Amino acid sequence: MTAGRTLPARGVGRPERLEEVESDLPAAVTEELGRFLAARRETCADLAPEFVDAVDDLSAMALGGGKRLRPTFAWWGWRGASGADREDGPSPDVVLRTVSALELVQACALVHDDLIDDSDLRRGIPTVHARWSARHAERDWIGSSERLGGAIAVLVGDLALAWSDDMLRGAGLDAPTLSRAAAVWDAMRTEMLAGQFLDVVGHATDLATPEGVLRISRYKTAAYTIERPLHLGAALAGADDDLVAAYRRFGTDLGIAFQLRDDLLGVFGDPAVTGKPAGDDLREGKRTLLVALARRHPDRDAAAPVEHALGRDDLGPADVDAARTALRRLGVVDEVEERIDTLTTSALAALTTAKIDPAARDRLTTLAAAATRRTF
Amino acid sequence: MTAGRTLPARGVGRPERLEEVESDLPAAVTEELGRFLAARRETCADLAPEFVDAVDDLSAMALGGGKRLRPTFAWWGWRGASGADREDGPSPDVVLRTVSALELVQACALVHDDLIDDSDLRRGIPTVHARWSARHAERDWIGSSERLGGAIAVLVGDLALAWSDDMLRGAGLDAPTLSRAAAVWDAMRTEMLAGQFLDVVGHATDLATPEGVLRISRYKTAAYTIERPLHLGAALAGADDDLVAAYRRFGTDLGIAFQLRDDLLGVFGDPAVTGKPAGDDLREGKRTLLVALARRHPDRDAAAPVEHALGRDDLGPADVDAARTALRRLGVVDEVEERIDTLTTSALAALTTAKIDPAARDRLTTLAAAATRRTF
Repeated sequence: MTAGRTLPARGVGRPERLEEVESDLPAAVTEELGRFLAARRETCADLAPEFVDAVDDLSAMALGGGKRLRPTFAWWGWRGASGADREDGPSPDVVLRTVSALELVQACALVHDDLIDDSDLRRGIPTVHARWSARHAERDWIGSSERLGGAIAVLVGDLALAWSDDMLRGAGLDAPTLSRAAAVWDAMRTEMLAGQFLDVVGHATDLATPEGVLRISRYKTAAYTIERPLHLGAALAGADDDLVAAYRRFGTDLGIAFQLRDDLLGVFGDPAVTGKPAGDDLREGKRTLLVALARRHPDRDAAAPVEHALGRDDLGPADVDAARTALRRLGVVDEVEERIDTLTTSALAALTTAKIDPAARDRLTTLAAAATRRTF
Repeated sequence: MTAGRTLPARGVGRPERLEEVESDLPAAVTEELGRFLAARRETCADLAPEFVDAVDDLSAMALGGGKRLRPTFAWWGWRGASGADREDGPSPDVVLRTVSALELVQACALVHDDLIDDSDLRRGIPTVHARWSARHAERDWIGSSERLGGAIAVLVGDLALAWSDDMLRGAGLDAPTLSRAAAVWDAMRTEMLAGQFLDVVGHATDLATPEGVLRISRYKTAAYTIERPLHLGAALAGADDDLVAAYRRFGTDLGIAFQLRDDLLGVFGDPAVTGKPAGDDLREGKRTLLVALARRHPDRDAAAPVEHALGRDDLGPADVDAARTALRRLGVVDEVEERIDTLTTSALAALTTAKIDPAARDRLTTLAAAATRRTF
């Protein structure tokens, strides 16, 4: 069930292909994913025509948006380790396919996360479970619409996770490279699931200490979004331990900074930019570092509007404003901003001292700035 | 994160090892799984001590029972293709690890299926979501116990699915063998998920025709439990197309016969043997071939007790008895028994004409008898 295209001989046309891919890496990733999913769609149509609806939902999720952060970091991790200069290494097309498989892991994470959080919308379109709940209701099916939606979302997420491995294994890596890549891939998924587990349990126990919150960000975001993708790229290039260590330091620090920026956006972000209602993280009651710091602030009166806003379905604009003002007054916004600065500086320092291809270093520096930039 | 043991050089001690494994294949599979899961448990304990509870739940599910049908068929598929006689093929230990990985796919299927069906018990012990719902309630956690249980079960199933691939990739197959095996593995998981999808949607639409029910059995049971595991074994041995075709015929027919036997057990089985309450499939409202045939029987009055029993939470012994009597009187029990006979005969015929190692053929014949035997 792998793509049947003939790959160019190693090294042939390599600089042109690199240039082409890098002129729009997210688009190149989307194209690879689209090709893979189209082939799977055919297989599934042969199995059972009804099943195609589920595959199309997965494709809509995987192809319909997203910044392709993970493949981008993995690609530049490979380039930074001079992977493209090694004649005996995988070709750009093989690397592109390998890093694109990360997006199917992410598709699983999104479908299952949306189900766990009971979110009806993602990037403005209905989530998989919401879509199937609606179909159930429209078509007058039997039983609970919500349960049917949940059941299909479990299966669609499983499909994405199974296919991510198929795509990795079928990417065309030689055995030693696949073996190096797999060690990173394995660790990444276990860490991601550990992070999600801690997040779910942390929410239920409400013991969200700043340290606990940072540990969740470490696994759920930093390891999964930046550190391990870069490490994967390094593994594809056969990078040495020093570079891997530098990447992991960069990835961990930048990843946490990225999460902290996202936390600020979740409370202060412009709905036009974030695609979510104002103050949505407060409404969802997310236990972010921002919230954890506010909640253990000694001035309980000043923190009251934050406490009041957390997890309220009926949160109005005035409540959001009051919580925002409180967060600023408590000084925890500044505290988080400072932490973002410190982490970003330390991340970039790791890049400076490592032996990285200069063009890739520039690119990673730009990505770091974009991931932590204030956009509100 | 792969097992660090040194494997014996190819061929060394092979006959002794085969004998040892085959003296108790299910136990050998359980041992392999136990080794893999113990290593993962350590990794997870380093990540987050709380996460170990989730890993232990998965281990309890994977190690605590089950007939190891899939690894057994895969093993004998390999043996039947004379895989053990090929000096250049994978060693018995590598094959054992490969086929054991099937049990982690199955662990995912069970955890997610139990969640989808909202089953609280499996083999007499609490299911993963029930376990975490109970922990949530006992520990006075925040929010809905049911939602928390469901969320953890989603993640534990994902962990099993991710690890199944890790175990396959880390089993020690050489690149061409892994590539052959992966094509079968990929197809198997997609078929399994297609079957589950059809089952869930079929239940919600209640359009369970005999043909529709048989198609679900084809993917959800036959392909996933027998046909593809045998095919996987054939791929490990580099078997020719004729043998693969024979295995697939055998596996499909036997797999459907096995499902039909299971359907009969679900209604007529002795609770002491099945581990489930009498008539449990009726209580759950399962759309089996037995039920589909009864529901389209022209004698609606005679079929009424079946209709009455389907999906009733308060189903009592008298209702079960009435439904059983009706199913017998309608002739659909005999019809299903006949179908089991026909399918079993056709399955065994496929074995007879194929070039299969005689010892393995005997073993597969015995397995076929066991899978379709009346045990009530």
